[in-house]
Amino acid sequence: MSAASIEQIVAFIRETDQLKGITRKDKPLGEERFENSAEHSWQVALMAISLARFADPAVDLLRVLKMLLVHDIGEVDTGDTIVYAEEGWDELKAAESRAIVRICGLLPEPQRTEFTELWREFEAAMSPEARFAHALDRAIPALLNLARDGQSWVENGIGYRQVIARIGPPIRAGCPALWDYLEPRLAAAQAQGWFGSKPTS
Amino acid sequence: MSAASIEQIVAFIRETDQLKGITRKDKPLGEERFENSAEHSWQVALMAISLARFADPAVDLLRVLKMLLVHDIGEVDTGDTIVYAEEGWDELKAAESRAIVRICGLLPEPQRTEFTELWREFEAAMSPEARFAHALDRAIPALLNLARDGQSWVENGIGYRQVIARIGPPIRAGCPALWDYLEPRLAAAQAQGWFGSKPTS
Repeated sequence: MSAASIEQIVAFIRETDQLKGITRKDKPLGEERFENSAEHSWQVALMAISLARFADPAVDLLRVLKMLLVHDIGEVDTGDTIVYAEEGWDELKAAESRAIVRICGLLPEPQRTEFTELWREFEAAMSPEARFAHALDRAIPALLNLARDGQSWVENGIGYRQVIARIGPPIRAGCPALWDYLEPRLAAAQAQGWFGSKPTS
Repeated sequence: MSAASIEQIVAFIRETDQLKGITRKDKPLGEERFENSAEHSWQVALMAISLARFADPAVDLLRVLKMLLVHDIGEVDTGDTIVYAEEGWDELKAAESRAIVRICGLLPEPQRTEFTELWREFEAAMSPEARFAHALDRAIPALLNLARDGQSWVENGIGYRQVIARIGPPIRAGCPALWDYLEPRLAAAQAQGWFGSKPTS
């Protein structure tokens, strides 16, 4: 029985290995290529353990880490979509939900249900764990952009007000100290011209 | 004070971002490039939550995940070395230890001490958590190789007996059910000619 379970888990690991080939809009700091969602998932989990004491004291860090390790695996089917996409967000999330059911369906229980529920909890962004996880997931592209002259904001025409509106509320809700850190730095980045120039900005 | 701490943590995240540029000897399943240590760190942490019930019941999964998220960050200074390297292992580990002290030194307390100690605990491979983490870290290249005709074994001339001797004991010690799964598949891979042909094999 354990051999059959491990066979299923190995199938899941092989399937999710494809996350290494899903590219995002940000670039690693020393590289000219785009980063992928596997690297990103590691980095946001590393942020979680580094910033743990700035989370709500009610946060169960283990659940945050599990959530962050699985939060992007649906992209194996859907690809990554920048959070500033203005259309098709509901369709995308429905497709990602189907992907999660398919991919977690490779697993035996209890992981199948556990990982599916963790993804749903992350997406709902209601629990203290999901709010903390969301704050970090929204913050990391900003931290990378601040370290490289607004690379993905400029390349994708993302304006300062769009960034503030899209990442401010979730970061403030899930990790207020991180927003206190970011807010003046984003304002300084605007003064530097590190944002794109869509009409909405 | 929290702003100063977050500044230090952001410096740590920027420094460890370089792990995305440290290449290993394995390749992601659908790609022709080598994988990097950031992707690998995500994958081995995902394995840990997937295989948790096959760990010793004494294992604290949160500590395992923290350990796996930081286990390779010293490679920012040293690069990755294949576990079959036969010379210079002690020098490498000494250099990695210095790297950990430098990189974790960017962090405020308590993370500075915590992450440094987690790395040492992982390297010592004595605690139940470190043994489980080691088992997964040794198993994942084998799982990838079994899914792609022994790619890194063939390319690096790694023989069947070398693999068994190097990964068998830690996997058996940290996750016996995983070794029960792997052992016959490695023997089958030998019959397929998926290993290299050093004299020692």
